[in-house]
Amino acid sequence: VKRYHEIIFEPSGRRVQVLSGTTILRAAKEAGVRIRSECDGNGICGKCMISIFNMKDVKDLTESEKKHLSSSDIDLGYRLACQVTCTEDIIVNVPHGTRIWKSQLQTTGAEKDAPLNPSIKKFHICLPKPSLSDSASDVERLLSYLKDEHCLGELDVKYELLQTLPDILRKADWDVTVIIWNDKEIIGVQDGDTTDKIFGLALDIGTSKLAIQLVDLTTGRTVRTGVIENPQLIYGEDIMTRITFAMNSYEKLKELQRSVVEGVNNVLQDTLAEARISPQNIFEAVVVGNTAMHHFFLGIQPKFLSLSPFVPCVSRSIQVKAKELNVKIHPNSIIHVMPIVAGFVGADVIGDLLSTGIHEENEISLLIDIGTNTEVLIGDSEDTLCCSCASGPAFEGGHIKHGVKAVPGAIKTVRIDPNSYEVTFETIDDQRPLGLCGSAVVDAVAEMRLCKIINHQGRFNLEIETSRIRTTNNKIEFLIADKNETATDEHVTVTQNDINEVQLAKAAIFTACSILMKEKRLTEEEIDQMLIAGAFGSSLNIRNAQLLGLIPNVPLEKVRLVGNTAVTGAKMALVSKRARETAETLSRNVRYLELTVDPGFNKEFAKAMFIPHKDLERFSS
Amino acid sequence: VKRYHEIIFEPSGRRVQVLSGTTILRAAKEAGVRIRSECDGNGICGKCMISIFNMKDVKDLTESEKKHLSSSDIDLGYRLACQVTCTEDIIVNVPHGTRIWKSQLQTTGAEKDAPLNPSIKKFHICLPKPSLSDSASDVERLLSYLKDEHCLGELDVKYELLQTLPDILRKADWDVTVIIWNDKEIIGVQDGDTTDKIFGLALDIGTSKLAIQLVDLTTGRTVRTGVIENPQLIYGEDIMTRITFAMNSYEKLKELQRSVVEGVNNVLQDTLAEARISPQNIFEAVVVGNTAMHHFFLGIQPKFLSLSPFVPCVSRSIQVKAKELNVKIHPNSIIHVMPIVAGFVGADVIGDLLSTGIHEENEISLLIDIGTNTEVLIGDSEDTLCCSCASGPAFEGGHIKHGVKAVPGAIKTVRIDPNSYEVTFETIDDQRPLGLCGSAVVDAVAEMRLCKIINHQGRFNLEIETSRIRTTNNKIEFLIADKNETATDEHVTVTQNDINEVQLAKAAIFTACSILMKEKRLTEEEIDQMLIAGAFGSSLNIRNAQLLGLIPNVPLEKVRLVGNTAVTGAKMALVSKRARETAETLSRNVRYLELTVDPGFNKEFAKAMFIPHKDLERFSS
Repeated sequence: VKRYHEIIFEPSGRRVQVLSGTTILRAAKEAGVRIRSECDGNGICGKCMISIFNMKDVKDLTESEKKHLSSSDIDLGYRLACQVTCTEDIIVNVPHGTRIWKSQLQTTGAEKDAPLNPSIKKFHICLPKPSLSDSASDVERLLSYLKDEHCLGELDVKYELLQTLPDILRKADWDVTVIIWNDKEIIGVQDGDTTDKIFGLALDIGTSKLAIQLVDLTTGRTVRTGVIENPQLIYGEDIMTRITFAMNSYEKLKELQRSVVEGVNNVLQDTLAEARISPQNIFEAVVVGNTAMHHFFLGIQPKFLSLSPFVPCVSRSIQVKAKELNVKIHPNSIIHVMPIVAGFVGADVIGDLLSTGIHEENEISLLIDIGTNTEVLIGDSEDTLCCSCASGPAFEGGHIKHGVKAVPGAIKTVRIDPNSYEVTFETIDDQRPLGLCGSAVVDAVAEMRLCKIINHQGRFNLEIETSRIRTTNNKIEFLIADKNETATDEHVTVTQNDINEVQLAKAAIFTACSILMKEKRLTEEEIDQMLIAGAFGSSLNIRNAQLLGLIPNVPLEKVRLVGNTAVTGAKMALVSKRARETAETLSRNVRYLELTVDPGFNKEFAKAMFIPHKDLERFSS
Repeated sequence: VKRYHEIIFEPSGRRVQVLSGTTILRAAKEAGVRIRSECDGNGICGKCMISIFNMKDVKDLTESEKKHLSSSDIDLGYRLACQVTCTEDIIVNVPHGTRIWKSQLQTTGAEKDAPLNPSIKKFHICLPKPSLSDSASDVERLLSYLKDEHCLGELDVKYELLQTLPDILRKADWDVTVIIWNDKEIIGVQDGDTTDKIFGLALDIGTSKLAIQLVDLTTGRTVRTGVIENPQLIYGEDIMTRITFAMNSYEKLKELQRSVVEGVNNVLQDTLAEARISPQNIFEAVVVGNTAMHHFFLGIQPKFLSLSPFVPCVSRSIQVKAKELNVKIHPNSIIHVMPIVAGFVGADVIGDLLSTGIHEENEISLLIDIGTNTEVLIGDSEDTLCCSCASGPAFEGGHIKHGVKAVPGAIKTVRIDPNSYEVTFETIDDQRPLGLCGSAVVDAVAEMRLCKIINHQGRFNLEIETSRIRTTNNKIEFLIADKNETATDEHVTVTQNDINEVQLAKAAIFTACSILMKEKRLTEEEIDQMLIAGAFGSSLNIRNAQLLGLIPNVPLEKVRLVGNTAVTGAKMALVSKRARETAETLSRNVRYLELTVDPGFNKEFAKAMFIPHKDLERFSS
């Protein structure tokens, strides 16, 4: 016998009836209550903390709960929503820190002008009806009309189209709109005149995040953006762990592919619903991502990317039908996967180039696209050199004790008074503070160094006297926000471990910049512009990033924050066939440097672990 | 608990262990004992008669058995193998008439010479291995080598290939054979040198039969042929019944598609096994069939074929990946579905033209491709006109009481002495007679008319005194072979109903010829050659076919039996790209006549019901 229970979520008061045994996380989803979860309910992230008011049938804590909940959490009755199943009528309290707020993660970026010339075109036509004296087949009728009236010769008609064509033509009484891809293939026929509805999808598959833009291809404008965690996170935060997992068997590789596609479909579904656009009106998708994500998305064996000489399977662009990849847009539409450069330098770098245009300029540019994997590019119209490094998720709030994404309530800037050590901060949307997002992590560590709260090696200076340096569970931490003022009723602090994570991340990025500059025989002074792309968005304090030694010490007036240029590059290729051609050329011409085989790498990395750097003269200003 | 039983089949003595509940038909299949069945075990054809020696747990007869078994069959202990399940260890006797003998149905036909130039080519290459200084992607490495060494530029690489490419290249240590379709797409990469193994498949999808040829594309020679019932027969013997079934819903259409594909896979599997060729080495298939079969095979809505103005969905050729249609050859290989003409005149007619070349000659040819659907073509290099008619399965042994396929034991010729009415006959392979195959049906009815056993209207002449005219269950029949001499221990006779079936079939075919000749304003005298293609093979007595009024009265020296020209035409398109181009031109240029809208049709048909015809002057010779 199936049993249902009523679950009420506070403070919103939303109610839902669920089958006995459903997890609270699942029930919340059904009730439309958004609860934080980064691991798809697998008990890995520990973010879905809730408390239950009136539970009689209290089950023991699961291993996952024991790991993620502190003893005070447990005392206060907190549980993880993904670990508790509904076995009676209950009222669930969703604390502020667990609620999801619309993320302000960067989903747009700098964008070069590109002439509007998408691959997808629509033609509204009224076909002559067949008769005994004109009994040409449906396809011949369609093609000869398109040839005579629109000079469209030699169009392909694929198997899929034939499945629906006879019925649609007759249902529409021969008054239809034909969707043509690349002046080459008829991908669909719709009833009546639908020429005002042509949309495309730009997709950036990041190691940690999937960012999309929905683009109106009649205007070239982005109508909506969306972002979601990469669901592959549960298979490992870093690329190498995922590659190792996928190497084991074909089934595991397919599992990773399904996982990322599912993520794409989820963010797409939400974003389409918000924009009130039917997935059937999305006729093309352009995809960028680093090489590993590219291989996973296409279900290609990634093993050889991780083994010297780090050879990808394919670097040119690939076209696949949406239905082959199970991406939920018009099934016959084409997914254009942008070309990649090499090794781990993927199509995201091509996107960076397209949207910033540094490959067209005479000046020397340095572009740093910061994410869990960071790509660095240096060059001009003559020559562009690039590399990739695994920088980890610290600047996206990951591996940081009180790290959060850029959601309302996230602390986005931090200032520490060098005399009183008092802290001032700003939060996104001026909400009560929830935790530190990437830019605040940079600020906090940089300011702590500036105030000498931490030393050159990043260790706490215990001689400083302030109550903000505290010890919790034998671990030293610096208090940013007191629990009385936070949304989570917990202190927001920076721990020694957080600082170490930041050092590792920033050392990786700086080393990449450093080796590229050495390879091009360029100094900081010779860089004409430095562009910071990726996760930080517009909140990054560049001065602090330099104080931290995250980025080279280029004069501030030469530095520009350019946002998510990867997804913007994909969008440019979506609206402009010319940008797509440029991408192909770039893929062949951009040079790639494999950092790990550089003999100076380890030494450079060790020096970059210092704050800002072992060689202080590199940060003399 | 799973229970197994041992089933022994006599007279072969083969044994098999099967799960309790398996039908005897299924068990026979597993034991490799071939039992006749035309309905895929659905209890419809009644051909799978067997008896069981030692059954204790005897179940009641099913409805199907009651319908198909005579009371004497039942007395003798006969059952249908598809209706009885194995519930204990048993010995099954398979009587001679139930055993399958290799059918001698026509799977080859006349063939014009065509230069060997298939779409599939193989190249054996040894690629330079990647290194840190040459880390181009696998695809770029492959393409640039093919371009430099074999001048193959602009090749497509599809998603499917990428799934396996990295592993194959490394497993083969970069020594591989590349399979290229149409100088355009890489469809596969194999380990080592496999250039001697390139095979293709020619397939004729008939209303009743599927005929295949396996072709060695290195020589252009057919290495094996195969034939099987079209499993769609259980959805109706004629096309209109199947179209009506498929019109009901998308699922039913897909069911018909699956059914024919399954049939193709079955005959393919057997034929490949016999030829010891791996399905992975079949890289292309060329398919012909009438328009309805074409639509079913491609899963296209066939409804509008059956409604005026009888418009097909597509007439040009269509390329589909084998895996999309689930045809079990190399999954990335292409299935080239040949172009069709119109209405019901399909790609089989294009095959007929390609293999006989009548569209290239100055003389006037009349081609009659006899099957359950019969196509008729008339013309020369100037103009070709064609039509189609539903002639039914009588000439393939269907709807005839003692009709059989052209298997060993089938009576293939019949002679009746006009004085004594004694019958002499020949059987295939000189086996004991089993029944009448198509050519014997023609002989029998023609000779009966010649001996005045039947009259002009096809009715028995009861004034003739011979013991061969008998009455069984109040029905008159003519005895061809006595039960003492047959393999089935039953009389082989021709019934009044058989004669009516033959009259309907021959009238349909003759009417089609007649109307086409009228349309072209040609008389029998003006026909320079008459070609008989299709089911009959080489056994047809042309003189008798004319005495019967099945085909026009053209002088014997101008008549030629050409065999299965449809499948041969497919084979020509498989080995020659030029033949494929010709097919495309023919599809556009051959004119089509819709018989049913001809105002003279009914009158012509009624006259053709007579034997040989109402207008005896048309058969004056």
